[in-house]
Formats: sequence, C-alpha cells, structure tokens
Amino acid sequence: MIPMNLLRGGNKADYILTGSWGKKAIKEASRYCEVNVAFDASAESGKFTMAPSQDQLNLSDDAAYVHYVPNETIEGVAFPYVPEVGDKPLVADFSSCILSSEIDVSKFGVIYAGAQKNVGPAGLTLVIVREDLIGETIDGTPTMFNYKTHADADSMYNTPPTYAWYLAGLVFAWLKELGGLAGMSEVNVRKAGKLYAAIDNSSFYANPVALDSRSLMNVPFTLADAELDATFLAGAKDAGLVTLKGHRSVGGMRASIYNAMPEEGVDALIAFMAEFEKKHG
Amino acid sequence: MIPMNLLRGGNKADYILTGSWGKKAIKEASRYCEVNVAFDASAESGKFTMAPSQDQLNLSDDAAYVHYVPNETIEGVAFPYVPEVGDKPLVADFSSCILSSEIDVSKFGVIYAGAQKNVGPAGLTLVIVREDLIGETIDGTPTMFNYKTHADADSMYNTPPTYAWYLAGLVFAWLKELGGLAGMSEVNVRKAGKLYAAIDNSSFYANPVALDSRSLMNVPFTLADAELDATFLAGAKDAGLVTLKGHRSVGGMRASIYNAMPEEGVDALIAFMAEFEKKHG
Repeated sequence: MIPMNLLRGGNKADYILTGSWGKKAIKEASRYCEVNVAFDASAESGKFTMAPSQDQLNLSDDAAYVHYVPNETIEGVAFPYVPEVGDKPLVADFSSCILSSEIDVSKFGVIYAGAQKNVGPAGLTLVIVREDLIGETIDGTPTMFNYKTHADADSMYNTPPTYAWYLAGLVFAWLKELGGLAGMSEVNVRKAGKLYAAIDNSSFYANPVALDSRSLMNVPFTLADAELDATFLAGAKDAGLVTLKGHRSVGGMRASIYNAMPEEGVDALIAFMAEFEKKHG
Repeated sequence: MIPMNLLRGGNKADYILTGSWGKKAIKEASRYCEVNVAFDASAESGKFTMAPSQDQLNLSDDAAYVHYVPNETIEGVAFPYVPEVGDKPLVADFSSCILSSEIDVSKFGVIYAGAQKNVGPAGLTLVIVREDLIGETIDGTPTMFNYKTHADADSMYNTPPTYAWYLAGLVFAWLKELGGLAGMSEVNVRKAGKLYAAIDNSSFYANPVALDSRSLMNVPFTLADAELDATFLAGAKDAGLVTLKGHRSVGGMRASIYNAMPEEGVDALIAFMAEFEKKHG
C-alpha cells in the first residue's frame, strides 16, 4: 500500500533495515520499485541487534520516500531518534510501539500501525497520512488501497470493524486517564528499565541489542545455556508467565511488555528469572 | 480482488446486475477488464426490483468468470436459483445472505461475504475459492490481494482479527444447535413469509419486488403516503423497533431480518405496522 500511494511518479524508495518487519516491507516494495537499502543492520553479523545512527544512513537523492520500522518486534531493536530525511516523506511502521510514547507526527509523511499491540483487538490498522500525500496512486491500485478512498469516506468506505474501533476508543480513554502518552511512556520506561537491569546485572541472562537501540516494548533475552530454555518456559508457565518463547529466528526468550502489561507482570517475571537463575545458574 | 485473481489472462467478465452491490462490483472490475453486463435489472424502470431468469442472461463466450449478488441488501432482491454459467467460474457476493440457508458450494468458483450480517462482527471477510482458481494474479497485485497468500498461510498471513474470528465460531456453534443451515433456513422462511404476507395483505404497505425475487433477509416496504415515513419511524422507535429507514436510493422502510433477528422481533414489527395502519391508514 505504501509504494502504491507514495511512489507518485518515482521509481525508487529508501528502506532502513533493522529487523524482520523491515525485511517484509522491502520484499513487497521491491515488486513496485527499486529499493535502496539505506542501511542493513544485519550486514556484518547476519543478525539485527542495533539501529544505525543518523550519519550511517545512505539515503538516495531520488527516493520517493524513506521507510523505517521504529520498533522491530522480533529483534527488540528500536530507534532512539527519528531519522532526518530532508524533504522526502518519512514512512514508519509503528505497529509494535504506537501509543507507547509521544510521537512528533509533523516529522512523518505516513505513520501506520496494526492495532493488535497497543491500540485494541487485531483487525484494525491505524494510518496517519500527510494530506498532500493522499490521492496519487500507481495504475491498477485497488480502490481499497488508495488512501484517498478512506480519507474521503472518513474511514468508512467499507463497513469498518466497529467493535474493534469501539474497544480502541476505550483504550484511548484509559490512556488519557494515565496522563496520555507522556504518562504511559513513564510507565514503559520504568518497566523496560527494570527488566534490562535484571538481565544486565546477571551473568546468566543476556540481551544482544546495543544499549541505545533497545526496545521499550519487546525485550528478547537468552539463557547462558540454551538447553535450559524448555525448563525455563515450563517453569514460567507454572508461575503464570506465558508467551515468553522467542521467535525461532533469534531463539531464546522474548518478553513483550506492551502498554497492557502491568508493572506487576514485569516484576513477577524478574522475580521468576532470579529464582530460576539461583536454581540452574 | 476478484478480477485480480480471476481474469487469469482473460480480459472480460460477465456481471449480472440486480442492485447496488453489483453496481459497485462492476465499477471496480471495469478498472481491470471489459465488463459485459449480462443482465441489467434496472434497464427498464431505472429501479432494481427483480432477478432475471436463467434464459434472460446474456452471457459471453469469452468471459473469464461470471459475477452476481445472490441477495442485494438495499433493494431486497434475491435470486431464487443459482445461475447456470457453463464451465465459467461463478463468483458470488453472499455478504447479506451467507448462512441464511444452505448453499451448494460445488456450483461456485468463488464465494465471498463480509461477516457483519450473519457471521459475526464487522472486520472479517469469509472467502471460499475453488482450488484451481488460486494463484494466478494480474501483474502488480498486492501480496495481500492474492488468494494464494491466504491459502498458503491458513488465513493467517497477517495477524487475523482474532476476536471477530472467535465470535464467528460461537455463531457457527449456535447455528449447529439450531439444526444447521437447514434449520436456520426454516426460521428465515417463516420470518420473511409473515412479513411479506402482512405487507401484501394490506393496502397501506407495499413491497415493489417481484414475488419470486424477494429477499429472505432484507424486506423493503413503502407506506401509502411517504409523508408519514417520519411518523412511522418515530413510532417504531418508541416501540423498540429501530434501523428501519430504507436506503435513500429506494426510500421508505427496510426491515433487515438477518439470522440474529428473533422471530418475536418480526412479530413485533408486524403488530406495530397493523396498529399504525389502523391509526393512519
């Protein structure tokens, strides 16, 4: 949908690659235009464990837009800053970090995010498009894939997913009560901070991501002995701590501590990890 | 999505036009191929009030597929039979009548239906595709619009709308308890039968649709005096009967009596209509 709406006569786009979602976005965009990978964070090690700094970006002059993923869900890699891309529209897949902290929307051409992490139930996608980027699509774009269709119809061109929409409204109200995204961000910084501290202060657990690129939402970690993974998961389950298995591409564990995960949940995980280390470390 | 997956090298498709949804389907298909309107039910009167008989269909030899809408929601026009289209794939938009009665799936190339009428909450679409029609798309088809993407991934290429899916499962279980679609169909025939009888036996209410093309799901009707429409709607609302206003393109009222509308709801509407006629007729 991004290249269909944003190429606008161009034939090239810049993609900053820091994880699995970026990879998928590049694969799809390559079907519609030339993709310049402005940075491939896996180039050296074959793994995604860092976000590039601004001066590492190899942006092209003739790109129609620049795409990046502020938070890579599987790898737990996040950008500590918003890339500067000159007068090109900046496009960001915020799926796994939308609503986790404040965003300066004015810096973006397009923000898009699946609802299923921090907004509401799966089945809803949130899209914010700068008005001047709406309406010029490539030939053959399905009407449903044209941003103009949705903008003109107040997002109700088709019957929208009403119940998911309603629940998202309740989530927005809850966020306001917490002090908005600034308030939510404080909680998230605290939650992630404790968990990374517990990992870093142990010689049994490790997180491979560069210190300045660590995600507030997804915290992958490995055990000193991967043979213990199954025992860890079973014990965690008994303690009421579930869906901790990491993606097979990175192995180990991943704690996804989205907005909806209360601080007590993180505390319980840290306590379980300490106990497990004492027994098996 | 239909032309993108079903043209398969062809450049023409047959569309049978019996109402508003068919019109929209034709508009979108015309962007991808030549559309032969195999029958335009509005050709004579400008209105959609009947489904053609089999021998009225003007099918073309070189169409890649034949599309029709078994139940037109706004006009309340339904097909009393499944069109015979030879060896062409028959494609049907079952959005407003899926699960209302049994379907011989083997007669269709593609069946598609939005969930929001008889399946579950809005935000889910049900698609049944004959296996040999999967996988050949026109150039530039987005990956998400390729039936093969969803078939290969068991409909979980993206995060599916899990909650809507779960609720649909509860609806399926409920239908099984009622005796499946055969049981549901009996109820629907009874509900619609009484309502049409009430309309036809009155000189105050009228339904414009040909007897053999009347929908079991959507029953439009007009009052003898359109000036009374607002009074009717206000009175109905006071009696707990809502969303009865007809679409502006047909005027009058429309009672949508989907599976979830209990027979008592139809009885209450009929009672209110009789009382209203007594007072204002």
